[in-house]
Amino acid sequence: MNVRVGVIGVGMIGQDHIRRITQVLTGGSVTAINDVDAARAGQVAAGLPGATTHDTAQDLIADPNVDAVLVASWGPAHEEQVVAALAAGKPVFCEKPLAPSSDACLRIMDAEMAAGRRLVQVGFMRRYDAGYRAMKATLDDGDIGAPLLMHCAHRNPSVPPYGFTTDMIISDSAVHEIDVVRWLFGEEIAAASVLRPRRSGRAAADMQDPLVLLLEMASGVLVDDELFLNAQYGYDVRGEIVGETGTVALADVSEVTVRTANRHGGRVPVDWRDRFIRAYDAELQDWLNALAAGTSAGPSSWDGYAAAAVTDAALEALRTGQRTAVSMAERPEFYAK
Amino acid sequence: MNVRVGVIGVGMIGQDHIRRITQVLTGGSVTAINDVDAARAGQVAAGLPGATTHDTAQDLIADPNVDAVLVASWGPAHEEQVVAALAAGKPVFCEKPLAPSSDACLRIMDAEMAAGRRLVQVGFMRRYDAGYRAMKATLDDGDIGAPLLMHCAHRNPSVPPYGFTTDMIISDSAVHEIDVVRWLFGEEIAAASVLRPRRSGRAAADMQDPLVLLLEMASGVLVDDELFLNAQYGYDVRGEIVGETGTVALADVSEVTVRTANRHGGRVPVDWRDRFIRAYDAELQDWLNALAAGTSAGPSSWDGYAAAAVTDAALEALRTGQRTAVSMAERPEFYAK
Amino acid sequence: MNVRVGVIGVGMIGQDHIRRITQVLTGGSVTAINDVDAARAGQVAAGLPGATTHDTAQDLIADPNVDAVLVASWGPAHEEQVVAALAAGKPVFCEKPLAPSSDACLRIMDAEMAAGRRLVQVGFMRRYDAGYRAMKATLDDGDIGAPLLMHCAHRNPSVPPYGFTTDMIISDSAVHEIDVVRWLFGEEIAAASVLRPRRSGRAAADMQDPLVLLLEMASGVLVDDELFLNAQYGYDVRGEIVGETGTVALADVSEVTVRTANRHGGRVPVDWRDRFIRAYDAELQDWLNALAAGTSAGPSSWDGYAAAAVTDAALEALRTGQRTAVSMAERPEFYAK
Amino acid sequence: MNVRVGVIGVGMIGQDHIRRITQVLTGGSVTAINDVDAARAGQVAAGLPGATTHDTAQDLIADPNVDAVLVASWGPAHEEQVVAALAAGKPVFCEKPLAPSSDACLRIMDAEMAAGRRLVQVGFMRRYDAGYRAMKATLDDGDIGAPLLMHCAHRNPSVPPYGFTTDMIISDSAVHEIDVVRWLFGEEIAAASVLRPRRSGRAAADMQDPLVLLLEMASGVLVDDELFLNAQYGYDVRGEIVGETGTVALADVSEVTVRTANRHGGRVPVDWRDRFIRAYDAELQDWLNALAAGTSAGPSSWDGYAAAAVTDAALEALRTGQRTAVSMAERPEFYAK
Repeated sequence: MNVRVGVIGVGMIGQDHIRRITQVLTGGSVTAINDVDAARAGQVAAGLPGATTHDTAQDLIADPNVDAVLVASWGPAHEEQVVAALAAGKPVFCEKPLAPSSDACLRIMDAEMAAGRRLVQVGFMRRYDAGYRAMKATLDDGDIGAPLLMHCAHRNPSVPPYGFTTDMIISDSAVHEIDVVRWLFGEEIAAASVLRPRRSGRAAADMQDPLVLLLEMASGVLVDDELFLNAQYGYDVRGEIVGETGTVALADVSEVTVRTANRHGGRVPVDWRDRFIRAYDAELQDWLNALAAGTSAGPSSWDGYAAAAVTDAALEALRTGQRTAVSMAERPEFYAK
Repeated sequence: MNVRVGVIGVGMIGQDHIRRITQVLTGGSVTAINDVDAARAGQVAAGLPGATTHDTAQDLIADPNVDAVLVASWGPAHEEQVVAALAAGKPVFCEKPLAPSSDACLRIMDAEMAAGRRLVQVGFMRRYDAGYRAMKATLDDGDIGAPLLMHCAHRNPSVPPYGFTTDMIISDSAVHEIDVVRWLFGEEIAAASVLRPRRSGRAAADMQDPLVLLLEMASGVLVDDELFLNAQYGYDVRGEIVGETGTVALADVSEVTVRTANRHGGRVPVDWRDRFIRAYDAELQDWLNALAAGTSAGPSSWDGYAAAAVTDAALEALRTGQRTAVSMAERPEFYAK
Repeated sequence: MNVRVGVIGVGMIGQDHIRRITQVLTGGSVTAINDVDAARAGQVAAGLPGATTHDTAQDLIADPNVDAVLVASWGPAHEEQVVAALAAGKPVFCEKPLAPSSDACLRIMDAEMAAGRRLVQVGFMRRYDAGYRAMKATLDDGDIGAPLLMHCAHRNPSVPPYGFTTDMIISDSAVHEIDVVRWLFGEEIAAASVLRPRRSGRAAADMQDPLVLLLEMASGVLVDDELFLNAQYGYDVRGEIVGETGTVALADVSEVTVRTANRHGGRVPVDWRDRFIRAYDAELQDWLNALAAGTSAGPSSWDGYAAAAVTDAALEALRTGQRTAVSMAERPEFYAK
Repeated sequence: MNVRVGVIGVGMIGQDHIRRITQVLTGGSVTAINDVDAARAGQVAAGLPGATTHDTAQDLIADPNVDAVLVASWGPAHEEQVVAALAAGKPVFCEKPLAPSSDACLRIMDAEMAAGRRLVQVGFMRRYDAGYRAMKATLDDGDIGAPLLMHCAHRNPSVPPYGFTTDMIISDSAVHEIDVVRWLFGEEIAAASVLRPRRSGRAAADMQDPLVLLLEMASGVLVDDELFLNAQYGYDVRGEIVGETGTVALADVSEVTVRTANRHGGRVPVDWRDRFIRAYDAELQDWLNALAAGTSAGPSSWDGYAAAAVTDAALEALRTGQRTAVSMAERPEFYAK
């Protein structure tokens, strides 16, 4: 079966998903494109035989040649687009965040429940990373006993000197750990705190970088997450779960070990794409496979909502310096695990 | 573009390639099937909507719904099938070995040259492994200087107690290193020797396992290759190139590190599939991409021939205990690098 | 030169130091012994030709055949014994803690200043560990830029089910990190907080294990220290300093890598002795060398005091759940770095 | 007990052993010195209170203040000096080689047997390295099954451009592996072959560097030993034993792992001293301890002889290009394991 995908938003990530569907994955094709920048939409469509451009997201969603919608526009536009797709009964892959506010996420959930079946997959691709999957398998197999703690680090070599705010360390970066720990431990996050270590002189003047985010899971498992967006030396995502009888950690990902100049060792990825490209491939293939099978898979609207609710609490903790309890709605039966 | 592939031979590896084309890769579909076991061909075709079965390989090759042929039959049948495909002007992916004898490989080369363009890709998938590719990139970048030596190990947990002979350690297992070192160093192998270490008591009674194969490259680079088919502990492929100023080695491939019971460490793959599945995916995608582009890629008939010639020398060395020079034809201009 | 050492307290650690001076190190001998358990003192002395036993610590200190005193008695006795040695003008090696309270440490400092020269070395042996020394050298060389954060873990396989309290996780275990981070960063600790992750079911019923201790250095460098006394899998001390341009971490200490049963990896030490025996050797050799040279070396009374003051704050933080500022006296010129 | 050691030969290694006995180890002192360069002997003695210099090795051996003799002169002088010490009934620590020819070693064995007890320890210090000891323990514990193969590499960053010959790669460097594999496997070496890989352009013009030495143990275990004296990148000694059910390898020895500039990894030792200093300490302490106990320990004259016999065969193999059987005398009962 071939899933005909309409893509809303063809910036960097949207174009990357188009390349993926067209050149890497099986079972999908891109048949329609929309972007607020019509010229950009046209350019991208020019490279895609058979793809049409639409002036509005609504038109794209209505296109009978579109079986499913991939939303890669900017965050504030997600709610309207996802809800429109749900109203049309079409499955949606929505890049993270599902929506910038938890209220908007709740409205998306309402729309999906009204549609009567699960139609939304949110783009939390770490769940598809081979490292995190092996980590979860080790945990679930009981090899390290019940989990007690997790140590995370999320380091980018740098961010642009303007436009990337301290808040975005939480909402753009930490949101990945927020989702992945919910998935790893199979439970919600109860509270968040933010610590402010010594600032790096490499960060923009008004940016508090690094941060340490503390997340308390409902069971008491404590997660500390070092977030360092100007770490210079590479893109490095680390994680270690400490259980009652052992630990499991993400391994380094270098393909080879080199010995030169009195050093031995491997390479550190240069950026998120280098590190997680296979995870992006796997998440979107999983989406296409689920569509072909008439089912849904991957992170749900509920996961998008939960991440937004925890992000709200973490931002509040950043502002106030206080431990902040996460405020969340009841999980509807519709989204039962 | 969609390449319609006819598959000759649907044993384990043939079926795996069908799954790959159908469920993993993009740009191809399986439209025709042939197997010496007609019942098996029928069973496999039953799971492939739109695929027809053919009584003979010749019929499959002639099928107008077949754009390209994938040969996964047993080795002795390769020559006839590949030559027939070439006569029909159809591209061929042929599993290794290209043919069991170097003479047969020469006849395939003649047929391909008669066809006037490169149509054959041989299934040496290690060239597509991320580890070997990073190793070659490191070497080619000059990071370790000119290569002088290479140490290899090729360990299988076990082989069936009957049917796997000492000769097959060379022809089935070592052939992978024979090809990959030619590719890594960009030169031919001049001579081979075989050493016989202490036998493992876990090997079948009439099997000399492990062996050490020594390969001398034309430039003098010396390769030692430990071949151990009953290594018990896992499937482990290792390699280290020693250059004038440094070394590069394949890294361990475990996704996570576990600490339990006074040990820390990672897992070793369980079998060749576990270790090289991505390389198989990449080689066949490369084939499909090249077909779509109207070009050819990957290991050529010349590479298949060279591997056969070196295998001949290594088997002679195994029999005689002597260093044996490799006897090879001139490389035709047609197969210039 | 041979330093004649009198040892006060011959329990496990005292006997180990005697073995060290007698059988491993150069430049010292044990000439006198005292213990509150006279029988034990006699037994130990019986194995040491030429060593005499003394009924009281005071007698031992006064013995003209004692050049220097090693205090390995229990903590509450340290103050009186160290002060007596200082009054006698004799150098002292005092096991940690220098004294259980920071006030007692201040009185020891007063006594040492009254003696007019540095005579006390405190047994913080991690400063002599090859791993921490390489870490400090890397930091001091500027290889990772200015330090911003440090992640520590301090895991014991288990502690006795009775007698080891939650407070002792701070005062007995964390005190090692408290000292070593002061030394690594060359600055004082300004505040402490304690987090309570999910309890391990392997801990005694009334023990909160693990804990996370947060230490804020004067410069803002933030240290998180996971303390886990019932980690089961081994004795594992880890540390990673995150700097502006890179990180440095303690490496695993296994001598060999083993591949068996689908795993590769190394061993984790079984206990603190296994992990730090060389550091104990090095610290005491440094003491003997300094005595022979008429100088002093290693952690000073000030370091003992600072550790006690931070321990006080951390225990307060454990009790109250609040971040607690460390209250410390001015550093006397006498103890200038 | 204090062993009074007379040192013959105070070049680099002799001076290092003096430093070791004087400043690092326990149970010994240096009381007498002899060197062919009397001025150098005087300079060294000047730094050793109480040490006297002797004009001849014979005088030193006869000195009543010398309990035991450490021979660190050049190889051709060893036989006469060791035999003289044995004639005087004094224990000897002799740096490797015991003597340059196997015949000379046999004469030393005769002299020792005539003395009636084991008095000689040869300076093969790798047996005292923590890595090799852990490797042997793993093997002896049966963790990897019966040994079948061993891969070794012995890499120096460089050797002086003049004076270091290809023969010395065998006699000076490979002799360490020759001894250590005899010790690891508890058996003799039956034959040797030498392979000549591509030459490094960094080696002196008349030097064949690297070499590969193949050693066949009596049981059939095959050892390949890469010897590379101009490896540039560091001093790197590697080893992996392959057994019937697993492997054990020397681990990297870096104390810390550093992450900077898109690399992670550890350091490689700069030279043999950096790598093996603790092994030198341990071997000489073992010697002193054995002397104090009135016993002998460590590599014996037989081990020195066996190494010389294998070296002879390997040099013959280097000259002729042929596999060469090792010719050895029967092992006298006196040297039974």
